[in-house]
Amino acid sequence: MASTTTLKGDNFDRQLFESVIKRRFFFTEAFEIYRLSPNFKGDNRGLFDYGPPGCALQANIVDAWRKHFVLEENMLELDCTVVTPELVLKTSGHVDKFADWMCKDPIKGRLFSWDYLRADHLVENVLKARLARGTRGLVKDSPKLDQATVDEYNDTLAKIDNYDGDALAELIRRHDIRNPENNNEVLPPVPFNLMFKSTIGPSAAAPVYLRPETAQGQFLNFKKLLDYNQGSMPFASASIGKSYRNEISPRTGLLRVREFLMAEIEHYVDPEKKQHPRFRDVSDIVLPLLDRETQLSGKTAPRTIAIGQAVEFKVIDNETLAYFLGRVMLFLMKLGVDRSKVRFRQHLANEMAHYACDCWDAELLTSYGWVECVGCADRSAYDLTVHSRYTGTSLAVKEALPEPVKVEEWQATLDKKLAGPRFKKDAKAVQSAVESLDQIALERLATDLEQNRAVAIETPALSDGTTRVELSKELLSISKTTRIQNTREYTPNVIEPSFGIGRILYSLLEQVYWHRPNDAARAVSTETLLVLSLPLAVAPNKVLIVPLSSNPQLNPIARKLSARLRNLGIANMIDASSASIGKRYARNDELGTPLGMTVDFDTLKDGSVTLRERDSMVQVRGLEDEIVAAVRGLVEGTETWEQVMGRMEVFGGQEEDQ
Amino acid sequence: MASTTTLKGDNFDRQLFESVIKRRFFFTEAFEIYRLSPNFKGDNRGLFDYGPPGCALQANIVDAWRKHFVLEENMLELDCTVVTPELVLKTSGHVDKFADWMCKDPIKGRLFSWDYLRADHLVENVLKARLARGTRGLVKDSPKLDQATVDEYNDTLAKIDNYDGDALAELIRRHDIRNPENNNEVLPPVPFNLMFKSTIGPSAAAPVYLRPETAQGQFLNFKKLLDYNQGSMPFASASIGKSYRNEISPRTGLLRVREFLMAEIEHYVDPEKKQHPRFRDVSDIVLPLLDRETQLSGKTAPRTIAIGQAVEFKVIDNETLAYFLGRVMLFLMKLGVDRSKVRFRQHLANEMAHYACDCWDAELLTSYGWVECVGCADRSAYDLTVHSRYTGTSLAVKEALPEPVKVEEWQATLDKKLAGPRFKKDAKAVQSAVESLDQIALERLATDLEQNRAVAIETPALSDGTTRVELSKELLSISKTTRIQNTREYTPNVIEPSFGIGRILYSLLEQVYWHRPNDAARAVSTETLLVLSLPLAVAPNKVLIVPLSSNPQLNPIARKLSARLRNLGIANMIDASSASIGKRYARNDELGTPLGMTVDFDTLKDGSVTLRERDSMVQVRGLEDEIVAAVRGLVEGTETWEQVMGRMEVFGGQEEDQ
Repeated sequence: MASTTTLKGDNFDRQLFESVIKRRFFFTEAFEIYRLSPNFKGDNRGLFDYGPPGCALQANIVDAWRKHFVLEENMLELDCTVVTPELVLKTSGHVDKFADWMCKDPIKGRLFSWDYLRADHLVENVLKARLARGTRGLVKDSPKLDQATVDEYNDTLAKIDNYDGDALAELIRRHDIRNPENNNEVLPPVPFNLMFKSTIGPSAAAPVYLRPETAQGQFLNFKKLLDYNQGSMPFASASIGKSYRNEISPRTGLLRVREFLMAEIEHYVDPEKKQHPRFRDVSDIVLPLLDRETQLSGKTAPRTIAIGQAVEFKVIDNETLAYFLGRVMLFLMKLGVDRSKVRFRQHLANEMAHYACDCWDAELLTSYGWVECVGCADRSAYDLTVHSRYTGTSLAVKEALPEPVKVEEWQATLDKKLAGPRFKKDAKAVQSAVESLDQIALERLATDLEQNRAVAIETPALSDGTTRVELSKELLSISKTTRIQNTREYTPNVIEPSFGIGRILYSLLEQVYWHRPNDAARAVSTETLLVLSLPLAVAPNKVLIVPLSSNPQLNPIARKLSARLRNLGIANMIDASSASIGKRYARNDELGTPLGMTVDFDTLKDGSVTLRERDSMVQVRGLEDEIVAAVRGLVEGTETWEQVMGRMEVFGGQEEDQ
Repeated sequence: MASTTTLKGDNFDRQLFESVIKRRFFFTEAFEIYRLSPNFKGDNRGLFDYGPPGCALQANIVDAWRKHFVLEENMLELDCTVVTPELVLKTSGHVDKFADWMCKDPIKGRLFSWDYLRADHLVENVLKARLARGTRGLVKDSPKLDQATVDEYNDTLAKIDNYDGDALAELIRRHDIRNPENNNEVLPPVPFNLMFKSTIGPSAAAPVYLRPETAQGQFLNFKKLLDYNQGSMPFASASIGKSYRNEISPRTGLLRVREFLMAEIEHYVDPEKKQHPRFRDVSDIVLPLLDRETQLSGKTAPRTIAIGQAVEFKVIDNETLAYFLGRVMLFLMKLGVDRSKVRFRQHLANEMAHYACDCWDAELLTSYGWVECVGCADRSAYDLTVHSRYTGTSLAVKEALPEPVKVEEWQATLDKKLAGPRFKKDAKAVQSAVESLDQIALERLATDLEQNRAVAIETPALSDGTTRVELSKELLSISKTTRIQNTREYTPNVIEPSFGIGRILYSLLEQVYWHRPNDAARAVSTETLLVLSLPLAVAPNKVLIVPLSSNPQLNPIARKLSARLRNLGIANMIDASSASIGKRYARNDELGTPLGMTVDFDTLKDGSVTLRERDSMVQVRGLEDEIVAAVRGLVEGTETWEQVMGRMEVFGGQEEDQ
């Protein structure tokens, strides 16, 4: 990835940026004092704590999310448990499929050093090292790479996210990729499940996992949600909470962590009606779309296209999915994301999660490259279907038809007098299995029964653990009947916008970061002045209040001002330290505090205070009431800084250091 | 526990109460559709999901908490990880001591049925059963209980929370307590650690636990927090997040769960200055205090006493602890807790957690008895000391003295030239161990060294896992010196108010619940009308908007009103279903919605709407603008319902069903 730029266009210096994040305690590695202690054999990688400004920023992003999505569209918010019984995640497919591929060294039987543990990272790092050296191996006298091999390596690296275990094994074999630490051959990659496992209760016989996503809890409550919504479709549930992925080798800071905050929406929709009633609200919004076709042609420049057109030309499959892409774009703009550093990328077919049938990621550009921050997947009816089938509980919607319809269809009847004694406590499960047979199956079974053959059908899990029963024609009869149908039953499709709050927060911090030119004449230090231009909507503190000097008369005024703003719900902080006023402002520029109020000796005389805008450093002066009103207008979005400057006295042009 | 009462004083009917909670989806057992499926061998007990109103109520309680504590006092909020390396919890004492006592049946080797698994529950249930039968055993012809034994059983039951494993074993032996299912003798109780255990990363060699409290993450960040606070003391950190306890036998619904939301404050204070600058704000608040002395005298009636007096008479140890008890009381009142159903109970000496030196619980009265909802513990310097000692990182405060002090003291010097080669990478740890020796130790060691004896001292963990080194007098010299001291160093004490949000939420729901007399003449159903009188501050929705009929002109007005309230930040819901208006209001009385607005045919004519107050069912009528202003005033607390009634036209006296 080439170098990225700061908000103002100069080169992004990650080391400088990280120094601000650390100095101002936005976040920190968790358990750092233990990791630094000599006896620590544990692993704290991929675990991060948010300090006060990071925690407030996160809370403000979550609050903005809840208002923008949940409240705006009356979504039904749930808070489900993280601890999840194994069977639930077995059914959802996560126990079998939620894994990365991992390589081991056969000679020592030991694990690789961190970066080479994941099979795709092993391939990636070895090929990159070979390209850098221009040779086929890392040992002396390795043959030089020819152009065809260079091209092949580069092609492989471009697709590195898309290989499965077999493909990775094949790459390792074909390119003779070895453990770079000792040149041993490596065993073929094995899957490593990414879920944290534990047991619940004292018996140790009840395995549980920490959820890898918040979605499953929402799906399992679908019936209750539909009832709560008085049976009306479509609707959405939403959830904000921690999820867990036991990454093999976490790196790149907040971007690949083992514990993270997610916000997920599950929008339940009739598969035959994927229109959206509020589609017109977003259809004119222009999105940068990197669709599947463009990617497969090897291009990386997105098409810039209005949402309405994108649906018309089938770039995006349906209105509901497109509606959410538009809403996501509006949300990111509210947070202060740089419009030129967003794109929406469609997943390639082999890249999607096991449950998805289409997926678009909102990606934000950072110094680590494009980072997937929001995934918008169409999970079809996958989850509701598998849970319903396993538990024998209907997770379908019954809808009254506008007019009754005459239907000719196969109908199956289970002889209850015989089935009861035969299946005992499984009788209900067998009955529900018979009821859920579709017309194609019924027609086939009818023929079999006619020919006096017993038939086997799939069932929900029975008490002996099996999921299949055999039924003779004494037990089961199937015939063609005509009936009047008044209702229609269907399993909803689920459109899922899923937000990684930590990734959004990190990318946003990078995107609002810049260096203020350090004018030597009024420099507050010899260091570069660093600024985070967080917008008022998400900034940890909205206002810094600084008493100009340590004069004891100024502090009570500052405290009164602070309480007044707090009563208006405006987060603020007093800095009454002995540092120069310039240093105190510089500190708060690093914290992203948008506004500053100074209480000085004129305040004692005439009750006036100054108000400073972070990005321009312009100050205006007015009576306390006027300034508080201006702050309130700015925070609530009813007034802009330009309007404030227009109607108030601009003070001194720029801040003075005293 | 005797029967409790509803908000209006009639008998509390738990079955009826639970029917509302379930019907309105406040919360539900998690993974219910799996638990109901025949093949589920897992365990979902103690896991609960919050539905939309429960989730909103929880979010509102958390929001009120953040405003009341964090923002009001500029606490430093952190968000730390749940996943915690074993070593951290080993040091804090949780790996060894955070356990309950569990009994097993020796004959079958199998576990008891749920209620008898915990040793204290086994004793409790068996003694209660004997008292109920009046006999000493559960088998036929068991001897009758005499009065002395009845008294002894009752005395044991009253103290059942306070026995440790040995005491429980002694009770089981002395009272011959057996497995009530098969009359087998039971094995002595063994400790069962209550933390969920897992491993992190692919090597399986790195054990982790899910945190049992949010406190440890805050303590480990103390140094960064102190820096962030510019070195100024006292201050508090705070954290809101999930914690986990793998309860042996969860029961009583939300009151004993395995995954729960906590809000914790860690207030760091100079042990010599436990005064609080804002103490006068709370000193006149009267609290019902059930102190240690009262409990030991066998009484259960709390003393009602002003906070100022309680500190003066040493009922509460210090101002800071007392200040927080007062703030907790104010917070509970804000939520709508019944003042007559709160008490503050001091822990008995043998009942406190291993880290606490004093503790008061705020308890709320429910149908399950008094429930501990907030614990206010003085953890002294325990946690900071053990983490500092283990890691060798200073977690102390250095304070400039107002005037320099001349100090005569023992001083130890480690010969660095010798110590370096001798201890290699442990040299720093040995140095820090020498530096942390106190005067008493130094005096003793000086004598030993003088007599040519090598001395052994405690160290932070060394690279070979030991925590002790021996030092000869070549390495270590100790002498008496005089120096001018400009600073003072101390490890802060921690006062910790810790809130169980789920327990508060459940107890609050019970306390605001009542039955509305069902006036047959205008009954909306034959069922009892149930009401949750949640105050506006925490109610899931503030306003219900009902179009009187399905007339298509009314719905757009309702939607416009809804958007208008939403823009003011007022959560609201439209019910445009075909149910009668009385039924729609009854549904929202069960949801605790405080206000209702009706849009009817007069609205079409003159733009007026009605506003209904939930508890009195009184309605007023006014123009849309007036009603919206009234709603805003009520929500923001600038106006009371009495004031609204005073200045507006009361409409129809009570709601009409049409």
